[in-house]
This record gives sequence, C-alpha cells and structure tokens, in this order.
Amino acid sequence: MINRELINPQSIVVVGGSNNVHKPGGRLVRNLLDGKYKGELYVVNAKEDDVQGLKSYHSVHDIPETELAIISIPGPACPEAVDVLAKQKNVKAFIVISAGFGEETHEGAILEEQMLKSINEAGASLIGPNCIGLMNMHYHGVFTQPIPEFHADGVDFVSSSGGTALFIIESALTKGLRFSSVWSVGNSKQIGVEEVIEYMDRNFDPVLDSKIKMLYIEQIKNPDKLLYHASSLIRKGCHIAAIKAGSTDVGKRAASSHTGAIASSDSAVEALFRKAGIVRCFSREELTTVASIFTLKEVKGKNCAIITHAGGPAVMLADALEKGRLNVPKLDGPLAAELKSKLYPGAAVGNPIDIIGTGTPEHLATAIDFCENRFEDIDLMMVIFGSPGLVKLYDTYEVLHKKMEECKKPIFPVLPSIVTAGPEVKSFVKKGHVNFSDEVTLGTALSRVLNTPRPMSTDIQLYGVDVPEVRRIIDRLPGSGYLNPEEVRTLLKAAQIPLVEEFTSTDRDELVAFAKRVKFPVVAKVVGPIHKSDMGGVALNIRSEEHLIFEYERMMRLPDVTAVMVQPMLKGQELFLGAKYEDRFGHVVLCGLGGIFVEVLKDVSYGLSPLSYDETYSMIRSLRGYPIIKGTRGQRGVDEQQYADIIVRLSTLLRFASEIKEMDINPLVATERGLFAVDARIRIEK
Amino acid sequence: MINRELINPQSIVVVGGSNNVHKPGGRLVRNLLDGKYKGELYVVNAKEDDVQGLKSYHSVHDIPETELAIISIPGPACPEAVDVLAKQKNVKAFIVISAGFGEETHEGAILEEQMLKSINEAGASLIGPNCIGLMNMHYHGVFTQPIPEFHADGVDFVSSSGGTALFIIESALTKGLRFSSVWSVGNSKQIGVEEVIEYMDRNFDPVLDSKIKMLYIEQIKNPDKLLYHASSLIRKGCHIAAIKAGSTDVGKRAASSHTGAIASSDSAVEALFRKAGIVRCFSREELTTVASIFTLKEVKGKNCAIITHAGGPAVMLADALEKGRLNVPKLDGPLAAELKSKLYPGAAVGNPIDIIGTGTPEHLATAIDFCENRFEDIDLMMVIFGSPGLVKLYDTYEVLHKKMEECKKPIFPVLPSIVTAGPEVKSFVKKGHVNFSDEVTLGTALSRVLNTPRPMSTDIQLYGVDVPEVRRIIDRLPGSGYLNPEEVRTLLKAAQIPLVEEFTSTDRDELVAFAKRVKFPVVAKVVGPIHKSDMGGVALNIRSEEHLIFEYERMMRLPDVTAVMVQPMLKGQELFLGAKYEDRFGHVVLCGLGGIFVEVLKDVSYGLSPLSYDETYSMIRSLRGYPIIKGTRGQRGVDEQQYADIIVRLSTLLRFASEIKEMDINPLVATERGLFAVDARIRIEK
Repeated sequence: MINRELINPQSIVVVGGSNNVHKPGGRLVRNLLDGKYKGELYVVNAKEDDVQGLKSYHSVHDIPETELAIISIPGPACPEAVDVLAKQKNVKAFIVISAGFGEETHEGAILEEQMLKSINEAGASLIGPNCIGLMNMHYHGVFTQPIPEFHADGVDFVSSSGGTALFIIESALTKGLRFSSVWSVGNSKQIGVEEVIEYMDRNFDPVLDSKIKMLYIEQIKNPDKLLYHASSLIRKGCHIAAIKAGSTDVGKRAASSHTGAIASSDSAVEALFRKAGIVRCFSREELTTVASIFTLKEVKGKNCAIITHAGGPAVMLADALEKGRLNVPKLDGPLAAELKSKLYPGAAVGNPIDIIGTGTPEHLATAIDFCENRFEDIDLMMVIFGSPGLVKLYDTYEVLHKKMEECKKPIFPVLPSIVTAGPEVKSFVKKGHVNFSDEVTLGTALSRVLNTPRPMSTDIQLYGVDVPEVRRIIDRLPGSGYLNPEEVRTLLKAAQIPLVEEFTSTDRDELVAFAKRVKFPVVAKVVGPIHKSDMGGVALNIRSEEHLIFEYERMMRLPDVTAVMVQPMLKGQELFLGAKYEDRFGHVVLCGLGGIFVEVLKDVSYGLSPLSYDETYSMIRSLRGYPIIKGTRGQRGVDEQQYADIIVRLSTLLRFASEIKEMDINPLVATERGLFAVDARIRIEK
Repeated sequence: MINRELINPQSIVVVGGSNNVHKPGGRLVRNLLDGKYKGELYVVNAKEDDVQGLKSYHSVHDIPETELAIISIPGPACPEAVDVLAKQKNVKAFIVISAGFGEETHEGAILEEQMLKSINEAGASLIGPNCIGLMNMHYHGVFTQPIPEFHADGVDFVSSSGGTALFIIESALTKGLRFSSVWSVGNSKQIGVEEVIEYMDRNFDPVLDSKIKMLYIEQIKNPDKLLYHASSLIRKGCHIAAIKAGSTDVGKRAASSHTGAIASSDSAVEALFRKAGIVRCFSREELTTVASIFTLKEVKGKNCAIITHAGGPAVMLADALEKGRLNVPKLDGPLAAELKSKLYPGAAVGNPIDIIGTGTPEHLATAIDFCENRFEDIDLMMVIFGSPGLVKLYDTYEVLHKKMEECKKPIFPVLPSIVTAGPEVKSFVKKGHVNFSDEVTLGTALSRVLNTPRPMSTDIQLYGVDVPEVRRIIDRLPGSGYLNPEEVRTLLKAAQIPLVEEFTSTDRDELVAFAKRVKFPVVAKVVGPIHKSDMGGVALNIRSEEHLIFEYERMMRLPDVTAVMVQPMLKGQELFLGAKYEDRFGHVVLCGLGGIFVEVLKDVSYGLSPLSYDETYSMIRSLRGYPIIKGTRGQRGVDEQQYADIIVRLSTLLRFASEIKEMDINPLVATERGLFAVDARIRIEK
C-alpha cells in the first residue's frame, strides 16, 4: 500500500538520526540535508539536542505529527517506536533501515510481524526492514552513497538487495545514466518489487512518469502480480530490464544463503520474462547498458548503420550485431557514392561508414544526415568517435548532441576515449546523454533488447478444449500418482490432442480390418501382462496381413494375455511437449524436438501457461532445431500450426487442471497425415 | 628485423617535429619530452630553429648520425628523407607515422616500396607507415594520447590498428592495467604483428621480459609464424590474449574496408588460436579483462571461492562461473563451521562466503586465510568488496593487498564502488593491482582463459600413413577436379582410414559368398550406369540370400549394367569429417556428428592440420553433441579413440597433399565392429 506520504512526504522524522555521518543514522540526515529536502525534517535521538543543525527530540513521543518516519535504531527497539508513531503521530509511511529481523532469526521474524501489524492497522506503508531506503526526486531517504542525479525521465530502479543496488548505481554512473527513483525493498515485509511495479502501473502518468524501469530481483514471490503489471507497463510504453539472480544451480545455492531468498526455478523465470516482455540481463554492466539503451529514441527495426572514424571498433561491433541476429546492411549504389564524394579520400561507406581518423565534425554530420534521410534501409545509427589526443572533441560532440536531438532515428553514442577526451565526454553526458564506452557491450545488449518479444496476450484460448470435461475427468480421479493409459487418453482427447489410433480385440478379423483401415505397417501389443516387451508381447513394423495374423496367434498363446492391441506404426519427426507445475508460477510448458534434442542438447523452449499463439510461435521459433521443424535441405518439415495448436490447447488444459504436477508427451510424432501423441505420462497431486 | 636501435635507441630524430602540439609532429616531440627520454633528441623542421626547446635542423642532411628516426612528414616526401637518413646518417630504425601509402592508392604503394628498399639495404628496421608509433619503457615514440604507465611486468601490446590500440588502452586504464610496450604496426610493411611476436620469442628473457602479450589483429598474414612463436612463448610461461576482428560475414566486410585488410576465414583463426593456446577475445573490454587476469598469480584449477560482503554480486558471479564450466564448490563440514564461528551472525560460508555488510577487514582476512590454507578444494579466490559510503575502505583494501602478496592462490579483486570508494580504489591500484569492477565480466573472461587449452604439439603423427604412397597417388592424378571412387579409396587406404567393404562381380555366387562373409543386410548397386538410383539400380537393406539373388537378377537385366557391387549395410551413429585448404593457413580439419548435427546445428570443431592427439580429443570433446559420442542414457557411444585415429591420420595425409582443396567423409559410420567411411569426396587442384 504505497501512498503519497511515502513518495512525496511533507514531513520526515529520522528516528536514530545522529551527528556521526559514518553511521547510518547520521548519514541519513546528511543525505536528506544535502538533497535539499523541502519539507519539515525532524530527528529523534535520546542523547542529543541538536543533530546536524536540526532540533533533536529525545523520544518519538515528543515529535509533532509527521508523514514519513525513517527508522535507524536497533531492531528490538523498532516495534515500540513504530507503534507510537503509527498510533499517536499519524505517521502514514515507514522506511525501516534497521536489520536483525526475519532475515536473521526467528525472534527477529516475530518483531517484524509486530511492526507490520501496527503499520497495517494504521493503514500506513512500509519499506524494509533491512534495506538502504528510498530516494527519488523529492528526497534522498537512504543511509548510503552514491546518490545519483535525479530527473523525471531517469530510471526507476527497484532492488531486492541494498548492497547490490549501490553497485548497480556505480555502474550506471559511469554511463551517465540518471534516475527517477531508487527503491531498496529489503525484506519486502509489506512492499516488495512486485508491489512497487503494481503501484507504478496503477498510477502511471504517461506525461510525468519515467518510462524506464530497472529491476534486481532475488526472489519472485508473486509471479502473477509481476507478470500482470510489468506487461501492462510495457504496453503503456515503458521498458523494463531485470536481473533475476540465481540462474544456475550454484547461483541458486548462493541466493539461498542471502536474505533468506529461495530461488525459483529458472525456467519459470525465463518463461515469465518472455511473456511479460521484460529484457533479461545477467550482470550489472548489462543491466545498466540496457537501461541506457532505453533512454534513447525508440528503435523501429534491426538495421544498423555504424559511423566511425576508426575501423577496428566498427568491425568488432559489426561482429557482435551479426552474432546477435541484427543486421548491418551493405550500403552501395549512387547514394553511397554520393556520400563517399563528400568525405576524405580513403573513407569507406559500405557500412561501417568510416570517415577516417582525420574526418571532420562536418563529415560526421553528413554521414548521420545520409542515414537519417537518404538510406531508407537504416533503422538506427551507432556513432563511434574517440580521440588520439591532438584536438579537443567539443565540436564533434556538439554535432552528435544536435543530431541526437534532431534525428528521428535513434543514435547510439560510443565515446571510447574516456580518459583522453574525459572532459569532452563529461560535458556531452551533462547534456543528458548516456555514453557506451565499449561498442561490443552495446551491441550485445542491443541484441538482447531487440530479440525480446513484446508482452504476450494473457487471454486463454478456449477453442478446442472441453473444460467441463477436463474437470470431470480430474475430479473423478481417485488420488495422486500417474494416470493410467486410458485416463491419459480421455484427458488428452478433451483438449483435442490427437492420439495415435488403437484398437483392442480378441477377434483376429477385426484386428486385421483395423490394420487395413489405418494402413500397414502396424504395431501389435498384448493386453493383460505388465512387462509386455520382456515376454515378446510387442511386435513392431508389421507390414502385412499374414504377418499380423502370425503375431496375433503367437501373442494369444502367451500367458495372461486377454487381447491384442494394434496401433499404426507412425513414421516422422519426433517432437517433445512437457509441463511442470512450478510453485507460485503455475505450469511451465516445455516444447522442442524429441530424442537427442531434448535428451542431449537440452534444446527446449519454456512458456508459462496459458499460452497465446504468438507466444507459442515465439517458443517454437527460438529452438536451435527450428530449421528441422521448418523443413531443411529438401526434407519436409513439421506442420508448425498443428504443433502450435496442440501446445496452446495443452496449456489451456493445464490452466484448468492445476492438479497436474508433471506431464510429457514424448514422442509426439509428425507424420504426413498430421501430429499424433504416441506416448504420454501425466502425474497429478490432489 | 627488429633491432636494439628500435627498442632502445641512444638517439632519436623526429622528422617533421613542430611546436604545434595539436599536430602529430608537435605531439610526438612533446610525448618524448614528457616521457623523459634519456638519449639524444633531434628535430628536423625546415621552418623552425627551435622546437619545444630543442634545436631544429632544417634538413635531414644537417643532423648528426642518429639511431632511430620517427617520420611525420607528408607521404610523398618520405622516401627521399628515409633514403638520406639510411645511407648518410646511419639510421638503423625507422618509425613512419605518415599515411597516404599502400592503404590508399597505387602510387602510395610504390612510395612505400621505395622506402622499404632503402631501409632493407641499410639493414634497418621499419615500423609503419600509417601507424601511431611505438612506446615502451625507454621512450614514447607516438603522436597520440593516452600514454599509459610502463613497467617491466606490464603488458606487451601489439596492434594492427593505431586507433583501436588507443581505445584498448583507454579500456585498460580503467582497470589499472600497466604496459611494458605498445606497438602499432600500421601497414606492417616490414614488421607486422607476427614479426613482433617472433622477436619477443627469439629474444625472450624469462627474468626481464613481461609474460603478458595482448594482440589486436586485423589480418593474419603469416599464420605459421604466428602459430610457431605464439606457442613457443606460451610454452616459456607467457600468456597471450588476442582479438582477431572480422569473425562474421559482416565483420569481414567491415575489415575489408579498413587498412586494406582481407579477413581470413574465421574457422582457420579459431583453429590456429586453439593450436597455439591463445585466448581469443571479441571485445576491448574482454581483451583488457583477460590481460588483467594474466597479471595475477597462476591459476591452477577451476575451483573458485567467492568472498563477499554483499550477496547479489556473488550470486551473479556464481551464475557466470557455472555457465563458463568453472566450479564454485560447496564448503561445509567442521571447517566451514569453524569459519562461520569467526564471523558475524548472519554470515554464510557455504560458498559464496558472505561476511555480510558489517563484516570487518579482519573477517575478510580470516575468510581469505581459510581459503588459502584450510579448504583444500579451492584453487582461487574472488573477493567482492565495495562501499556504502559510511567509512573509508583503506584498511580493507590494505588487507586485500597484503593477502594478494602473501597467498599462493590467486586472488581476484572485484571493487565495484569506483565512485563512492574512488580514492581507495585508486590507492589500491597504485600498488600495482588491477581492479575488476564488474564481477560477471570477470567470471566470463576467466572461463575463457581456463577453457583455452595449452599449446598443442606440432609434431606430425606419421604412424599409419604411407606418405610415399600418398604422394605417388596424388602425383599420378591427371589434373584438377573431383577424384573418382577408386582414387578416393586408394588415397584413404594409404592413410589406413577404414572404408566400408565392397565387392564387384558379374558372378551371382561370388556376390552371395561375399554377402555371407560381411553378413546381411547388404546394399547392392549396379556398376556401369551413372544415375543408379533413378533407374532402380540401388537396393538397400537386403536381408537374405534369396533377396540378393532376386536383386542381382533384376539388376543384371537393366540397360548398360556391367556388374553388380555389394556392400554391407552399416548401422550406427553417423559421423562427419571434412577439410578445407585455407590460403596461408593450410588445411582446416572439421569434425563432428553427421546428419542434422552438421547440416542444421553446425555443431563442428575446427583444427589446423597436422593434428596431435591432444588437439583432436580437444576438438571432439568441445562438440555440443559430444555426449552422444561418449554414450548417453544407456546408448552405446562411438569408439572415440578410433575416431581420433582417423582424424589424426587424415590430417597427416593432408599435410603431404596440399593439392587437396576440399574433402569430406560423410558419413563415417560408427558400427559395432568399428568406424567405416561410407562415402567420401575429394577435390584437388594441381
């Protein structure tokens, strides 16, 4: 329950404020004063009368009514102070810096619960405990440094971890990235990353609010909330970049040892980010690079022009863009010749456009103008311009600045001479720009941005799935465990997932008639015994009536056999389809090619149920083995639409059958007559 | 022909030196003066009598004898000046800064050739033209900035591109990386990257010389020289990191537009770097990070301890290390409990070791000591320590400094608070340390280092290859083109590459006897007609004598058939083996699994012929599909040793048959009885 008093308080009390700026309480007061906080500022300190020039009250009982309290006193003393403030001083917002709560001990967890109770009863908001605080355009309520610059169009940054937040800000500062707000949510007792995003979405003002969000998440407690509000913000024109730490097994172990976070399964995170349209990052450097990209004009396509005065970085950047599936289209013909004629001899215009080391600011302007107005095949420009230290670059960077303002196409500045042209780079950044000092880091981050899909529809595709029937089947099941083959068949049928035909009989002629109808070759299996294969109860690749009769007669003589079952023997590409119920996330659906693709290469895509068609196609097409589905080297591919149909319908089925904890269809065979599930296993928990 | 006069000249003349430090000639003189060059320094400038306090001669004719000339005058004037200096002034080393030579025009190429002739006749050395110069511990002979710090244990850096060299130095400076020498070789008219490496190898002094080499290469002109001397240096204890720009098609196009470089095929580069043991990098950031890693103590294994006071970065680092196939072993048991007892409550020791935000310098020392002396399973430590800005970190960084000196295991410092703890980080770096400000960038770079194999043996494995027979076969061939099946068979036989057996006859009984001997099923093919399949001249999967006789009789009745050929029908995993002759590099050998692995997934390893066994195993084991070769999920694998034998012998064959321009064996089938080439194509050029 984030409120106005938390975001823009008219009065603040620092409980535990002191004169020692090397302690949190002292630094907090210092930061508020340095940040020129405009409201009333009070301090509570039992031993002092004056704290950094402010009157200090000796007890929370003595202070006037206040909107926001920032608490920095020992943990055990917090609940009482909070209670007084909430009940007697009408405090409507709390930031509890103090640690020693649920993250450390059971006793701490009880104290934390007490505080929350007082706060909730007063209808107040709570950030923390165990956090560094909150800073925004209105006040700097943190006990730490650095304090970045705040601007309305800066980044809104929310972090599960205070220390990590600081290091991310350090990385942002080197790029010139500015902030609009920084939230350290600590133990997230009342307000976690999800709630901040929810608040930003519900109160989004397209004119006043920043459109750039940056998240560092250690645990996703409420995936649905994050998904809903992150997608919603992105649909409103925002961009979100996020790190979810703990993506490998070791990472997970590390996450468990920090702030009591228990890492979610990474595939669920992968699936959630895809669905929401969140750009996933894996390092501080990458996160702040992606956020810097978001500060520039909207990128409309994947065709990049590289404008440079030095060949090497342009080549490395072109390599990185190509690896990231972006394009550096060749520029030639009369237009390229015209551009070349305006540059010094030795310049190259084929893209990269190399205006060479002696190229002038005017040459840079000309190259940019050509890319902006003349070359239609260009969506964005990357300008690499450093200095060998002979002349100052103010003129050049002024040209770059102006063009970045004027041009409709985004321009990415790569200014590598951060030492030699340090003052010029600083002056450029001071105009509100970011700087990408390493071109390959930029290229890789931009690929990540442009390869992240838009938020997916969260509509459930009901067509083809008989939901009441699904529920009837599930409800009728006696208990937990693996479903038997017949139960599996009825359940898949309810979602119109085609199964290989089969026919069971004790009548030879009926079986032969069935085999003729489905066409040879067929498979015959005994019905009755459990270990069919071991006893010779399975015959593959039966190609003729005579052969089938021979097998039928042989099988009927085997012990315990009550009948023979015949299936057509399917030939075609094997596909895989699976799902796993992940606590809090719901079902993660896995799709891919079967056999070695799933077993050896782990070439699988993840999606969160329920799936839309767009999402499903995005999953299928991000498989490394996709060329095989599409059809390659004269080989017929797989009916992609039918595969998508099946995946979507399965995801709908799962949405209404949360009792299914694990299932797979393996293989799903793509024959010439369509896709058929040959084998499926489903495990439920009731 | 690098000589002492180039490296450590007793006297230098700057031809074209001036008073304008915003022009190359002026800046050159300034840099030499600022760098406190200790020898005699002369200037030639037709218009000045005094240049920056030095006497200026009006003509090269007027100067005394000099050892090194740095030339910065217009290109067309260079050859004459060089000729006078070489012939009359006994100049033994030249650095030609000037541009406008072969990189621009045909006339320029002629001028360049004239200069080289004079220089070679005088037995002198030449760096450039079209370069920024050379700087080392003795003098700063460049016209650019920045000038890094020089130390004997710094990095030796050689670059094809001057501008790129500067930007790489900018990136190095932010990490505290120091240099021993910086070579910009420009057009490499006499001395290229390869020649510098050759010189460093031939003159290597294990006590005085730096062991760290960093290369930026746009074109590998002499792969053999690079391979030989780079491997040799690495065997002598050096480490080499290199960027070869132009690794994708677009990158290649860009490279062609710069310094006239024509990119080599990237697979050949990949193969050469693997053979040499060079760590390949793809960005400036990565190159300088890898070089920074080289400055630390030798890493002896892949087990990393992460020591931190903030959980988040440790989690992200653990993720990155795990992705890079390094280990973050779990620490537990009594030893871990003992460590935990020495830290604050809330600390975690499972690895990452989190001494928490309030952890003291003593805690850091304790954690490091445990990893150094007690935990045997640890090969290296990574210490993450930043600042929330409350107290200064001098004490902490002093502990880190001392431990880095004392400990045998390498310690990687990750100091993220480059702004808030800026002065402390600077003071730490001033003690001769590097700083990795982003932990994930470090983790990724370290993986790259530890996953690069040692230099491979360059011995040729002759065993099993009948070289005289190979030469006889090749020499007997009438001309260029594809070899016919019989020629292919004899050639492969000479290298003992097993071929599927085959038997051709017009005699039914002989064919049946052969089929019985090799065992059914077999394949029968007509001999005579070209388009066998189209006419029904191929029969697969013949399972019985009767079936074979039936096919034989049918086939012998087909038109133009002169005989029938029978092969056993092989079953097993299909492998791929290929080779391509790459100009200057020799044969690049490709290996992998067959079918979709080579066609769709492009899962192929590259090696440079001739191959050693180590190299071949390293190729096989770096395949994504390697688990299939090894055997997976109860499935029998491939006889890896026999596959290696075949690859090694093929590479030896190729080494003696450079006429082979392209060849593949596809498939090579791994049966239960061994590997057999089923189909092979070889193209030669004579």
